[in-house]
Amino acid sequence: MASAHVSSGAGGAPGGPTGGTAAAQPTLGSMGEFAVIDAMTATMPTAVGVEVGPGDDAAVVHAPDGRVVVSCDMFVDGVHFRSDWAAPEQIGRRCAIAAMADICAMGAMPTALVIGLAAPADTPTAHITELGAGLAAAAAELGAGVVGGDLTSADRLTVAVTVFGDMRGARPVLRSGARPGDIVAIAGRIGWAAAGLAVLSRGFRSPVAVVGAYKVPEPPLSAGPIAAVMGATAMIDVSDGLLADLGHIAAASGVGIDISSAALVVPPRLAEVASALGKDPMAWLLTGGDDHPLAATFPAGSDLPAPWQQIGIVTTAPVAGAAAVTVDGTAYDGDPGYQHFR
Amino acid sequence: MASAHVSSGAGGAPGGPTGGTAAAQPTLGSMGEFAVIDAMTATMPTAVGVEVGPGDDAAVVHAPDGRVVVSCDMFVDGVHFRSDWAAPEQIGRRCAIAAMADICAMGAMPTALVIGLAAPADTPTAHITELGAGLAAAAAELGAGVVGGDLTSADRLTVAVTVFGDMRGARPVLRSGARPGDIVAIAGRIGWAAAGLAVLSRGFRSPVAVVGAYKVPEPPLSAGPIAAVMGATAMIDVSDGLLADLGHIAAASGVGIDISSAALVVPPRLAEVASALGKDPMAWLLTGGDDHPLAATFPAGSDLPAPWQQIGIVTTAPVAGAAAVTVDGTAYDGDPGYQHFR
Repeated sequence: MASAHVSSGAGGAPGGPTGGTAAAQPTLGSMGEFAVIDAMTATMPTAVGVEVGPGDDAAVVHAPDGRVVVSCDMFVDGVHFRSDWAAPEQIGRRCAIAAMADICAMGAMPTALVIGLAAPADTPTAHITELGAGLAAAAAELGAGVVGGDLTSADRLTVAVTVFGDMRGARPVLRSGARPGDIVAIAGRIGWAAAGLAVLSRGFRSPVAVVGAYKVPEPPLSAGPIAAVMGATAMIDVSDGLLADLGHIAAASGVGIDISSAALVVPPRLAEVASALGKDPMAWLLTGGDDHPLAATFPAGSDLPAPWQQIGIVTTAPVAGAAAVTVDGTAYDGDPGYQHFR
Repeated sequence: MASAHVSSGAGGAPGGPTGGTAAAQPTLGSMGEFAVIDAMTATMPTAVGVEVGPGDDAAVVHAPDGRVVVSCDMFVDGVHFRSDWAAPEQIGRRCAIAAMADICAMGAMPTALVIGLAAPADTPTAHITELGAGLAAAAAELGAGVVGGDLTSADRLTVAVTVFGDMRGARPVLRSGARPGDIVAIAGRIGWAAAGLAVLSRGFRSPVAVVGAYKVPEPPLSAGPIAAVMGATAMIDVSDGLLADLGHIAAASGVGIDISSAALVVPPRLAEVASALGKDPMAWLLTGGDDHPLAATFPAGSDLPAPWQQIGIVTTAPVAGAAAVTVDGTAYDGDPGYQHFR
């Protein structure tokens, strides 16, 4: 790797070794903050509803609803992703999707993203521009644009993504609105990313179906705004695991939730991978957090359109000390989900 | 220091040593992510214009203007601040003020902040809650509230602050609107934080007047929205140094800028400190970036109210290769200002 503070103009110096040496690539250190920011903003697609985009002190984004929905997520190399497991463009997509899931879980559509990036000076500039391109591409798929950001030096690649969304006149769907008798449903597959993580952790790079699901989840996030229109009573994105995140709805709403294992079917592919690794695939479905499906509750009798799929029902609040979220009426005895610092 | 992953319940265990041991304090690792977030959100004051505050997937903030102004800043321990030089509450204030300056430099008033925090597991929880309290206090002084955030583990304390603002029907003041003949003015003192940094770097803790200016700058940020109403043609917040940031206005506007050294007076206190350290105080005024005053251009003949103070004029664009920003008509030959990775 190039040293942390190389002098300027090191990129592709004539007469130097060509190919195979990281030192020949332009790095953040060789280009400097402003040139890298210029290179990144030049590749960002413009989005509708953006009055002032990147390049000034701040961006100006339309908020036609008269309200703006905002959420922030931090992603740290080695904690939330591993640079040695995924390409920068995939890491960018993954960060954008995880961050936008929070906006869609309120029933809003993402409109704009701002990106804070901290990275070591010897990071190849191409890694950062590709990460930015991945963020922008994932945002564009939901109609949102990257409108600004910040770039600074740090020991370890850290990505802070703040997403703005528009409610389009709808009522925000909180965690606190679930009522006994409501249907519990999810939109998007679950367990696949956890299987991919298990495979990668063993040093394997395939099957691609599960490894790819971990690298870049593809939840149907537009199901969130649809759920809001359908009258969803509570909603959350599953980032800590299905049991943990339904637990947040149960706690905020003062209810219990019972999942039906018959409705939460283990896909044959996950069963195969689990068998090969000696793992329990149902644990991936119940506690895996990296697929980012949406989970919501709907009034009893609601006719749920795809991709929403019923997986359980809302019950009355459990007695003190009992599990708020059960599977077939019984407390789950595995690891409940991920929590930082634990 | 406590180990990175101590078991739960370590806070103030009876029978253990009292006082003087960091291990007796609750840490992020001993409390866990969710308990720390609950402790932080419990202390955050509510702000007007917030429909949904912290605690759900996302916040919902009013945007009465129908547009939202957004900006993001990253702050890394050892790069932007030093945990051994300032209290957590001061670091929080500093991060909020630096981030809000970008919003005010567009002519907008801050309405809400979201905070991404990454910190080592052995960080005392009190440091994080005090940092959050500092952020919230500085935001509240401008009428804004902290409405959400994220907390995750990392090797080094990193703070990502995204600020939203409201234009109140005004036109955003960009960097690109300066015209030859315009007045150049600043609002807020400059050079004090650079003097404080020079003092701290030598291992001193006083004079308090300059050290305090570095720890918590106090720029008159509401001068930004006032400038917008007064017809400012261009505006920026001075975060990289006066010459560097006026250079951004000059480049975006296609003009030159000449500063009058007679208008940019070195305060006696800074002259004393500079003399004691063997430094040039004018270099602090021209290149120091941590005071976060606002710099703007106004049409010739504008009657500037306090705290705006004329320091120069806008000229025609310099010939190729010549300095875009000059002092008394001459290029400045010192270090032009800070740039990351350089």
